[in-house]
Amino acid sequence: MGIRIGILGYGNLGRGVECAIKQNDDTELSCVFTRRDPASVRILTDGVNVYSTNDILKHKDEIDVLIICGGSATDLPTMTPEYAKDFNVIDSFDTHAKIPEHFANVDAAAREGNHIAMISLGWDPGMFSLNRAYANAILPEGKDYTFWGKGVSQGHSDAIRRIDGVLDARQYTIPVKSAVDAVRNGDNPELTTRQKHTRECFVVAAEDADRAKIEREIVTMPNYFADYDTTVHFISQEELDRDHKGIPHGGMVIRSGVTGWNKENKHIIEYKLTLDSNPEFTSSVLIAYARAAYRMNKEGMCGCKTVFDVPVAYLLNMSGEDMRAHLL
Amino acid sequence: MGIRIGILGYGNLGRGVECAIKQNDDTELSCVFTRRDPASVRILTDGVNVYSTNDILKHKDEIDVLIICGGSATDLPTMTPEYAKDFNVIDSFDTHAKIPEHFANVDAAAREGNHIAMISLGWDPGMFSLNRAYANAILPEGKDYTFWGKGVSQGHSDAIRRIDGVLDARQYTIPVKSAVDAVRNGDNPELTTRQKHTRECFVVAAEDADRAKIEREIVTMPNYFADYDTTVHFISQEELDRDHKGIPHGGMVIRSGVTGWNKENKHIIEYKLTLDSNPEFTSSVLIAYARAAYRMNKEGMCGCKTVFDVPVAYLLNMSGEDMRAHLL
Repeated sequence: MGIRIGILGYGNLGRGVECAIKQNDDTELSCVFTRRDPASVRILTDGVNVYSTNDILKHKDEIDVLIICGGSATDLPTMTPEYAKDFNVIDSFDTHAKIPEHFANVDAAAREGNHIAMISLGWDPGMFSLNRAYANAILPEGKDYTFWGKGVSQGHSDAIRRIDGVLDARQYTIPVKSAVDAVRNGDNPELTTRQKHTRECFVVAAEDADRAKIEREIVTMPNYFADYDTTVHFISQEELDRDHKGIPHGGMVIRSGVTGWNKENKHIIEYKLTLDSNPEFTSSVLIAYARAAYRMNKEGMCGCKTVFDVPVAYLLNMSGEDMRAHLL
Repeated sequence: MGIRIGILGYGNLGRGVECAIKQNDDTELSCVFTRRDPASVRILTDGVNVYSTNDILKHKDEIDVLIICGGSATDLPTMTPEYAKDFNVIDSFDTHAKIPEHFANVDAAAREGNHIAMISLGWDPGMFSLNRAYANAILPEGKDYTFWGKGVSQGHSDAIRRIDGVLDARQYTIPVKSAVDAVRNGDNPELTTRQKHTRECFVVAAEDADRAKIEREIVTMPNYFADYDTTVHFISQEELDRDHKGIPHGGMVIRSGVTGWNKENKHIIEYKLTLDSNPEFTSSVLIAYARAAYRMNKEGMCGCKTVFDVPVAYLLNMSGEDMRAHLL
């Protein structure tokens, strides 16, 4: 029997976790929980039940690790501490500024229940954070750069869709090539928000909508677009569905540092992701850390952990001997 | 007082460790050991003594972690197990095929002495291994690629220097751009040795040497050059000293994998290093893991560890709170 995974929330991320379980022999899907009517939720895996979130505690003994696939704004701040009392839990909480508070709440709950809780997993926070940490450990004198994209930002796409007269929209975040090149070259540039990324928007407008007004509202929108060079393309719903259906993303974490008695040598460490599916990659990270949570809890550990606390050996479905023989 | 580091062996790597100690506030150089006459060895740090390796046990109480800067061929297989009995030790053993045997020997010695020993640290093995492991954990269905260079291979440079009529030489290993592009594109190519890297040699020949014969001997040399497309340039000693003094290196570890219910989405994870100084970067990795060895031993752990066993939190001179607030 594999590690029994429960999925809480069945959107893009939950479905991604379900797919990742299929790729990992030592894990199995135990059940899915939803806040919707369970009868209305069709999942991909045969013979697995969908239950109401209200009944989750009844299924406690069927689950080794619960992966909470909720949103960072309102779901995870309450759900992760709540369920950490009764389950080993995994989340992808990504509101960077609120991580310390979330960590403290989850840690207290997990310790109370003798469970492992792993938070803020995915690629940023997650694999990008890990690479920032390694690069800072190796090159203490240096400068960090993070670029996102080219990829779809769901939050920015949503913001455009809320504008009057907009029927649908897709927003891409794109790193500025000259900025990336300067960083890779070790120039250590000081970069403003505008110099690092551009934003490209594909918008489906209602027939009678004022396109000039929509464009103006987008490019001047505070926080979302005002600080960037933004281009807006009006296209048809057919074009949007045909050319912009995917949810690709990615980006780079680069540290540029120096070594030597007189700091005479430059070094560049770059970690780069190019992802066809943002939620499926995130889900794949969640499943690897679910394996780690299960193992760490079996060894008697408890409390809240992040990527910084977990040796990679816990993530791999492979013996230490095999790792050293084949990956070292 | 910082973590007291002893350096055993004062070549490029030992000097690199000395420089790295200067960049890490919480470490200090305790002393240097050499097999040469200690009086003949001048180090960079004021007020630190150089002793004979024969006297190393006399200084046991002055050292928290001993970094063994020896060669993998003959030094480390005996030195690391020997000193692991009396010290927390760090090495950069890089003979991939012999790592399991080295691990077993070092582990037994370290457990006997209740010390931590960390082996095979640097960038490959080391950071590259770590990135292979993370990428395999996240994308279980995929293919790994490692490219080295552009950089100086010391072993290949030495092999050329042993040819009759050669006064000096420098060899660069260079990844083949079209191969790297195909991998980054997710094509999953099957690549032969020749298709992955080319080798470029800069050779200073004696005045009366037969250059055609030297070139033939290089390009047909088994193991070193015969399986590669190799170009040979004859240059003067002045040109070699002027243009090829550095020891840059680097490379990429790339994993190309798929996710999705029907494996329909591609993902590329790339870790790339561009290093002005191969030994100084390696040394910077050694110092970060020396910090980890010290901390793990203080917590009561012992035995042999690799990059797979150490959470990044142990490598950073930073509190967990600060890591979560600033790096996550």
